[in-house]
Amino acid sequence: MNTDLPVITDVRLTPILISDPPLLNLSGVHQPYTPRLIVELITDAGIVGLGETYGDRAYLARASELSRQLVGVPVGAINTILGLGRSASALIDATPAASGLRGALTTDKVRLSVISAFEVAALDALGRHLGVPVHTLLGGKVRDRVEYSAYLFYKWAEHPVDDVPADPWGAALDPDGIVEQARKFLVQGGFRSFKLKGGVFAPQEEIAAINALAGAFPGAPLRLDPNGGWSLKTALRVAEELTGVVEYLEDPTTTVEDMAEVHRHSGIPLATNMIVTSLDEVKPAFDRDAVQIVLSDHHFWGGLHATRDLAAVCRAYGKGLSMHSNTHLGISLAAMTQVAATIPELRYACDTHYPWQSEDVITERLTFTAGAVDVPDTPGLGVELNPDALARLHERWNSMPDMRERDDVAAMRRAHPGQRTATSLEY
Amino acid sequence: MNTDLPVITDVRLTPILISDPPLLNLSGVHQPYTPRLIVELITDAGIVGLGETYGDRAYLARASELSRQLVGVPVGAINTILGLGRSASALIDATPAASGLRGALTTDKVRLSVISAFEVAALDALGRHLGVPVHTLLGGKVRDRVEYSAYLFYKWAEHPVDDVPADPWGAALDPDGIVEQARKFLVQGGFRSFKLKGGVFAPQEEIAAINALAGAFPGAPLRLDPNGGWSLKTALRVAEELTGVVEYLEDPTTTVEDMAEVHRHSGIPLATNMIVTSLDEVKPAFDRDAVQIVLSDHHFWGGLHATRDLAAVCRAYGKGLSMHSNTHLGISLAAMTQVAATIPELRYACDTHYPWQSEDVITERLTFTAGAVDVPDTPGLGVELNPDALARLHERWNSMPDMRERDDVAAMRRAHPGQRTATSLEY
Ligand SMILES: [Mg+2]
Ligand SMILES: [Mg+2]
Repeated sequence: MNTDLPVITDVRLTPILISDPPLLNLSGVHQPYTPRLIVELITDAGIVGLGETYGDRAYLARASELSRQLVGVPVGAINTILGLGRSASALIDATPAASGLRGALTTDKVRLSVISAFEVAALDALGRHLGVPVHTLLGGKVRDRVEYSAYLFYKWAEHPVDDVPADPWGAALDPDGIVEQARKFLVQGGFRSFKLKGGVFAPQEEIAAINALAGAFPGAPLRLDPNGGWSLKTALRVAEELTGVVEYLEDPTTTVEDMAEVHRHSGIPLATNMIVTSLDEVKPAFDRDAVQIVLSDHHFWGGLHATRDLAAVCRAYGKGLSMHSNTHLGISLAAMTQVAATIPELRYACDTHYPWQSEDVITERLTFTAGAVDVPDTPGLGVELNPDALARLHERWNSMPDMRERDDVAAMRRAHPGQRTATSLEY
Repeated sequence: MNTDLPVITDVRLTPILISDPPLLNLSGVHQPYTPRLIVELITDAGIVGLGETYGDRAYLARASELSRQLVGVPVGAINTILGLGRSASALIDATPAASGLRGALTTDKVRLSVISAFEVAALDALGRHLGVPVHTLLGGKVRDRVEYSAYLFYKWAEHPVDDVPADPWGAALDPDGIVEQARKFLVQGGFRSFKLKGGVFAPQEEIAAINALAGAFPGAPLRLDPNGGWSLKTALRVAEELTGVVEYLEDPTTTVEDMAEVHRHSGIPLATNMIVTSLDEVKPAFDRDAVQIVLSDHHFWGGLHATRDLAAVCRAYGKGLSMHSNTHLGISLAAMTQVAATIPELRYACDTHYPWQSEDVITERLTFTAGAVDVPDTPGLGVELNPDALARLHERWNSMPDMRERDDVAAMRRAHPGQRTATSLEY
């Protein structure tokens, strides 16, 4: 019997830079390195809990602040930790450009993304202490495997800068390239559904890529996500062409009104990780039926309990639920898998960037078989930290101050000054 | 480390009859005895988890059915248990008259009320096994005490039948009687807020009772609940008189449209445990702003996780949350207290009938001080079964087949054939 739960005695925050391929999106191109923050909650019982979140400056500042408040809190006091994480602090000045892909970045969203790492770490520590997997702390798994979609990207063969590592994926800049990339995903992980990050080329080209995927993988669920890059008129035309072809269209436009119009006009199911990214955005979007599938993300929403809360809201309003991903490592994939395993309504394959990441801070990388990750039943998240890998990636963070903010716009501008504008995406 | 969780090997279902005072409501009068069902989940680890729910025939039948499905399930598999509980079974023929006070009784609601007892019992067993309180399994308490309101009833001095026990409360049939009853609550448990069960006398008399309470307890939050017994016209007039006097008005009318009209016209906050009693009733009522405060009830909603889910929905939609109660014993009060402790937004005092119950099946009754119950940090729910008390109350159930269905209407008709009609409540 453990009537006394471990108490947090220290918090170790380690910012790192992880290598990232030159993936293209509406904003621009991924940098060669992306910042992440690894959180270790250290307890008086000798148990350490692991968490992971965004690593840009604003997140680091907030994480430092929150760390000081957590010393002395028991790891079982998840709701208390969430309360501390939400509480007021100095206004956070945060405008990394990549944030545009998740809607407007607010102080609250930074807070929630930071708190998610602490909540996950506390659940990991609590699970390790009690000898139960994190999913048991969330009511238990309802499935043994969590399915993920293959996340296809237009990409360059290499980064447009010197002295950065090559990646083995090659270029993908047209329908054939995308189909070839999808085949690699199929071979490597057995993925059964495919999502294409759009908003990069003219809509006709992206529609052609989707149609090529439909031809190459008959019956496989497909998705296209231009991150709100289209005008209403363009979105309506794409919706018309892809209704019945895609499982859902993701964020074709950026406003509640336009999303509602696209759905009303075409009947195509719309998913979002841009117009519904926090609880206060739910009602306006649901009232207008602007979205049919909400893409949860435990980072944005503030943790695994918050993800389950979102699932409950979607259940009450008859909305579907799927899962969004930004560049992340194995700690976050483990957390995504743990919570996804507990939500009966999560019937869409989740998004993950994980196959694009060649580096990690855990001892054993998670693997995809038949497009799914096994839900571990070992205590906590089921992953172990590799201190050497962590130190190496932190050393990179130390040595590359100009990579510490992820900025896809700036990375693109360095390669092609002034080349791309939003209007280039019009139909 | 407990990597293997206890597995359910047997389920003990014990229907009981508990004595109940002659409390009056819209339907009629409480019977001298009310059926409840006590659930014991027995595990291979020797640990037993406790739950409690409604004990009428339809609930017993469903509980028997569900029990058979649960053998072999680990107590940590809460979401699996919930799934089994929700799954289809033969249509339940359930129309006990008291159910009118919780809105239309459907097969689904019977299922959820049954499953709530099993979920609570599984959480109790899991908590006992892991050595943590149930609140830790729900993310941890955010308060150390849960406040309850004094639940005032019009009542007779005694039941209108022979050979049933007397109660020490005396009659309360007018404003003075209600104020006197409130004083007893204050003396016995320090209650700071007061709810009057209305729908019994003409609205003017019940308004007079509320005004008498306001005079006797200045500043104390007050509530009036006629269980939907008023016409729209009457509800509008009562709302006009009580705006600013009551904290909220509870279910003045029975339809979404009329509730919306009462709120729109008067601005008075409306609470409900009748028009929003399950997830599918949320959207229609919220869309019309027919309710401002939802009264959760872990029995109706299907357990403690479901109560937290409801809290999330209310958070997303800016609705208040409070807690409903029907006649219950200490196991349910412990469950209510555990979950209430974990919900930050639950800022209203919860309802409970518990002070009206002179009997219980636990070894130590829960107590109210300053109107609140302490949140226990002992493993599980924090209550222990008294097998002798359980056996005695079960023996009563065996010997009184005519009390096995709670039917307030029939009890009233036996005392006063044909006396009361809904129209007697009009303003
Ligand atoms: Mg997206
Ligand atoms: Mg009520």
